[in-house]
Amino acid sequence: MTSDRRTGRADDLSLPVPHLPVGTYRMVRRDGDTLHVSGHGAFEDGVPAHIGRLGETLATAEGAAAARAVMLHLLASVAAEVGDLSQVSFLKVVVLVSSTPDFTEQHLVADGATDLLVDALGEARGTPARTAIGVAALPLGFAVEIEALARVERAAPDEAPR
Amino acid sequence: MTSDRRTGRADDLSLPVPHLPVGTYRMVRRDGDTLHVSGHGAFEDGVPAHIGRLGETLATAEGAAAARAVMLHLLASVAAEVGDLSQVSFLKVVVLVSSTPDFTEQHLVADGATDLLVDALGEARGTPARTAIGVAALPLGFAVEIEALARVERAAPDEAPR
Amino acid sequence: MTSDRRTGRADDLSLPVPHLPVGTYRMVRRDGDTLHVSGHGAFEDGVPAHIGRLGETLATAEGAAAARAVMLHLLASVAAEVGDLSQVSFLKVVVLVSSTPDFTEQHLVADGATDLLVDALGEARGTPARTAIGVAALPLGFAVEIEALARVERAAPDEAPR
Repeated sequence: MTSDRRTGRADDLSLPVPHLPVGTYRMVRRDGDTLHVSGHGAFEDGVPAHIGRLGETLATAEGAAAARAVMLHLLASVAAEVGDLSQVSFLKVVVLVSSTPDFTEQHLVADGATDLLVDALGEARGTPARTAIGVAALPLGFAVEIEALARVERAAPDEAPR
Repeated sequence: MTSDRRTGRADDLSLPVPHLPVGTYRMVRRDGDTLHVSGHGAFEDGVPAHIGRLGETLATAEGAAAARAVMLHLLASVAAEVGDLSQVSFLKVVVLVSSTPDFTEQHLVADGATDLLVDALGEARGTPARTAIGVAALPLGFAVEIEALARVERAAPDEAPR
Repeated sequence: MTSDRRTGRADDLSLPVPHLPVGTYRMVRRDGDTLHVSGHGAFEDGVPAHIGRLGETLATAEGAAAARAVMLHLLASVAAEVGDLSQVSFLKVVVLVSSTPDFTEQHLVADGATDLLVDALGEARGTPARTAIGVAALPLGFAVEIEALARVERAAPDEAPR
């Protein structure tokens, strides 16, 4: 993946096909300019991917790769909701990491997700508040699940009148 | 429970008595039109109910029943705060499921909560973004705890001038 | 710590030095009047403090002390962002407690954090919605991690015209 760091654009970001909810909810609930983004996992060819547990079957680097893959799916859902990512700013990200009780590098796993955000959106829009948590288990056996709060920036009137 | 699916009203929804905080916090913190709803459990006759852990003492269907009971209590708190539910829209729900490390059906447990929301409020107001998580343990031994973010819709000026 | 309960001011609250992010995120992401506050732990002399797990190496009272210490660090980050705490109101707090599966007093641990909030800011601004959760593990081995949503109150025009 390459991106234009100067503008924070990532027009060539290759996003996966957005996946559907696995129950009664929406992947993104838009409320005005605010985007409430559901917990996402990663899929490959329609099958859950990046399965396992940190401290047991997955090493920290594999967890970070999982977090990156999940964030790509999350960005795909956001792009599907708002059209493109050029006006989207991330306010908050929660990274849930399936962990054994003795695994304590959830923050390094989470960097896989937020490093991607910065690459894709630039530092200003891609550096949110973040919480990284080690949890007992996740739906479908995911190693990492990510939820987010984002906002669609309104262009200033003289920039893009509507 | 029955509800009028066409209007999303549930005037005959039977809600439990709202329970009090078990510490220093409010069940609902209202900020303008926004309702920040604390983590809720289920009580019966003032005693914690739906106690246990998925993958151990409770099956998935029992977990979904717990999630439904918890959501009823959460709706009771919201109704107590705003008067009735007819203008309330749910933006985000987090369903915390006490889980063994090998239980991976948290999303099916969570449907017990959001299916009820749709029954009670209709699809438009009752289908939020959602995150389902398997956690190590919950206060008072609850099998399921749910927190939410909701909004009170403001009626359009020509509908209900104030 | 002492505070003026009548005004909700805590001008003499002794806050620690705000600590830096341990990865790609911001400690506080401000969006207009809204403050999205990242998951915080406690540090002493730059080293992670209040390490351990409830139900195993730490008793409930020690967990509450950890929650208090973490909230002091969180308040330090908020004060660093907005200048002082006199106009800050807490809307939501999530208290994550590293727990064995049989520990069920996360709500009592969390009181360590929200009791401090009330002491520091008064009941009106210091009593948020709250969720307390027992999790498998936390970054750096923290016993307690806390994230929050807060708001900077805008003074009424006749109080403080700008």
